[in-house]
Amino acid sequence: MSDVTSALLAALGPDRVRVGSDIPVRNHADASGLTPTPPQALLLPRTTDDVAAALRICHEHGQPVVTQGGMTGLAGGAHPQTGEIALSLERMTGVEEIDEASGTLTALAGTPLAVIQKAAEEAGLMCGIDLGARGSCTIGGNIATNAGGNQVLRYGMARRNVLGLEVVLADGRVVRSLNKMLKNNAGYDWTQLFIGSEGTLGVVTRVVLGLHPRPQGIQTALCAVNGFPAALKVLRALERRFPGRLLVFEGMWREFMDVATGPGGLARPFAADHDLCLLIEVAMGEDGPDAFAGFLSEVYESGAVEDALVAQSEADRAKFWAYRESPYEYGRYLPKLIGFDVSIPLARMPEAIEALRQRIPERWPDAVHVAFGHIADSNIHVTVARQGMDAATYRSIEGVVYDIVAELGGSISAEHGIGRNKRPYLHISRTEPELALMATIKQALDPRGLLNPGRVL
Amino acid sequence: MSDVTSALLAALGPDRVRVGSDIPVRNHADASGLTPTPPQALLLPRTTDDVAAALRICHEHGQPVVTQGGMTGLAGGAHPQTGEIALSLERMTGVEEIDEASGTLTALAGTPLAVIQKAAEEAGLMCGIDLGARGSCTIGGNIATNAGGNQVLRYGMARRNVLGLEVVLADGRVVRSLNKMLKNNAGYDWTQLFIGSEGTLGVVTRVVLGLHPRPQGIQTALCAVNGFPAALKVLRALERRFPGRLLVFEGMWREFMDVATGPGGLARPFAADHDLCLLIEVAMGEDGPDAFAGFLSEVYESGAVEDALVAQSEADRAKFWAYRESPYEYGRYLPKLIGFDVSIPLARMPEAIEALRQRIPERWPDAVHVAFGHIADSNIHVTVARQGMDAATYRSIEGVVYDIVAELGGSISAEHGIGRNKRPYLHISRTEPELALMATIKQALDPRGLLNPGRVL
Repeated sequence: MSDVTSALLAALGPDRVRVGSDIPVRNHADASGLTPTPPQALLLPRTTDDVAAALRICHEHGQPVVTQGGMTGLAGGAHPQTGEIALSLERMTGVEEIDEASGTLTALAGTPLAVIQKAAEEAGLMCGIDLGARGSCTIGGNIATNAGGNQVLRYGMARRNVLGLEVVLADGRVVRSLNKMLKNNAGYDWTQLFIGSEGTLGVVTRVVLGLHPRPQGIQTALCAVNGFPAALKVLRALERRFPGRLLVFEGMWREFMDVATGPGGLARPFAADHDLCLLIEVAMGEDGPDAFAGFLSEVYESGAVEDALVAQSEADRAKFWAYRESPYEYGRYLPKLIGFDVSIPLARMPEAIEALRQRIPERWPDAVHVAFGHIADSNIHVTVARQGMDAATYRSIEGVVYDIVAELGGSISAEHGIGRNKRPYLHISRTEPELALMATIKQALDPRGLLNPGRVL
Repeated sequence: MSDVTSALLAALGPDRVRVGSDIPVRNHADASGLTPTPPQALLLPRTTDDVAAALRICHEHGQPVVTQGGMTGLAGGAHPQTGEIALSLERMTGVEEIDEASGTLTALAGTPLAVIQKAAEEAGLMCGIDLGARGSCTIGGNIATNAGGNQVLRYGMARRNVLGLEVVLADGRVVRSLNKMLKNNAGYDWTQLFIGSEGTLGVVTRVVLGLHPRPQGIQTALCAVNGFPAALKVLRALERRFPGRLLVFEGMWREFMDVATGPGGLARPFAADHDLCLLIEVAMGEDGPDAFAGFLSEVYESGAVEDALVAQSEADRAKFWAYRESPYEYGRYLPKLIGFDVSIPLARMPEAIEALRQRIPERWPDAVHVAFGHIADSNIHVTVARQGMDAATYRSIEGVVYDIVAELGGSISAEHGIGRNKRPYLHISRTEPELALMATIKQALDPRGLLNPGRVL
């Protein structure tokens, strides 16, 4: 047993420090697809003081630490590297307070997102963060990665929902601002530094979220349009007509619908083929459901929308969402695939789709490629799948997609983060002075480079 | 002439470097009330390269620099101290681009907020930032101070409206991320560091703002309620009934209305006296104006609201706003005053008002004290005025108000910032570890302490 593990055991006790075969397999890998790697030890703190003691000891020993939450990240941020000690927040769980007057919720960082959503709902409010992994991902991980998801259009990314944080720094110092106020300009808002820095600057241990009023009901439609400019027209018309009520505006291009209704086995929603399908949700207002149906008739009459279906029941709604969530099933029928999570400025989106449609089949005629995602947020997910994908093909496909992103001034990560997997490509979205500034920040907060080393930078 | 001024003159030329009586009086003082002080020199850059050259030279000479925008700040952030060189962005003005598809606006930092608002409107969109000083304040200053204002409830503070920044660091390096995308998790969002740091970490030279759809119309009401809990009830009911459409929710307590309708000379809005008046604005929706009037009838019937007036014209609306804006006239009839800009968690707001009403008259029976402001944002402004206010009384009154803030877990600055004036009180809202972390950030980015020294920290 290493010196640092002995010191950790002495300070925290065997209940909180695991080694060897006592480390569960779940802590060997996140959802990034990297080869599972057991950490040197697994720390299971129960309190912020435990985290502080652990980081203090690791700091003294120059011991690298990887922080773990729900292990749902796709970029390798929580995936152990050989020799690292894993610090899992899985036992620091629980909603500590809902302050209904202030509209805030305070929770420990290891609390699963779904638990937070449920607590907010029980208080008659709602949490603005939602994503597919809600049952497993933790609020600490959501904040560390500035998670996006399905409601960004209305409630913003994780950053916008955070009012206060408690963070343990690399050397074990605890910094706390459990602020519940919408406005607080008393000095630097240092919490912003830790949101989206993927655990490389500190460990989030406690959070205060601002909650939102719950919509009175949700109206859902599936619309077909002829290309992205028409989709933008519908988006802007929705924003004007239903200000503050547009919750979801997801796009699924033709190739995506072909996979969902071909190997995916879902029924074709419309009689004809269309370039782009939109999944739209609007909060119910005083104007009742007729206003939404009336709007859809109008955009159909105007020619902006080629066809539309309005959900008449929860079953319809589930049917519409099944298209959007079909990528969770890709593992069953698309052998080897690469998933991308990129942002493209809205004005350049048509060029991005055209370039994908041209360059992927040109190089790999047998590849399947689809594009879909949170198009109102400028965020599309691209999946490219191919039989017999070796490492060289993998890198070539990454090259083609990231070239398009670079040409159009996009971002190589819209919401999943950089982690380990996208680190080699960070220079595409960031200039030298930006990377130097990030390094300055990292050096100031973690001078020994012990927190999530090799992630992001 | 000092070495540094000579070097600046050589690099930038006499058009961009002013000394002595060539420095206009406007650059001697901001709106903080501090004694006007001419800077050692005034720099008037026209480009980012000019700013970079100026800061590089000042850095080489160890020369402190104060950055200036519209000079409307109340906390002394832009107010020169003896020996400082002032860097005014007043010539770096202009909206460079409106990208309607992406819904973004790019402007130079010295552009007045009103110019940006007008440009956005002409493109059929709107800017989410609005405050009383709109005609003079600059977008760079708004971002450097994370400005609040009248629309925070709906559109957030300045931070939430910023998508991209160009910043010149203390040593003259230019860092640029003119991001137009709602989502960009490619590495640290370093722009967050500069928003709200009051020019102490870098000089903002260019900004990208996210714009919003324009409301189709605005409905305004003035309501009387019996205390803060009733106001909160009305607020939550409005949020539920008009999701995303509540634009303004301002509170004015009895003492405030007494001053507005007494020495302020405005007509009394209601026959009876009420504890708290609310100014409410809701964006017009598909449901038409009757929905808003109907809502007000309901809250009146329920007893939550004691009286209400709905604006029937722009003239009515202006009349209602005149109460809220009456503090701009305090100079005429309240001799010596101190203005506070504090946040109090909503759950503790009644205690704050009660404490003010008890402790101010107890110590200073002849003092006038009023409370008003953006109550939905947890932000109240407090003004205490008194004949014969000497420095000792001034400090005592500050002590009483900040004691209340400290007891209730509030913030000494909701939206105006810390600047020089509130620096001695920062410890009330921030713990030692937080102050140490802020100092670490400052040290990393401005190791020689040359940017806005003595502000914030």
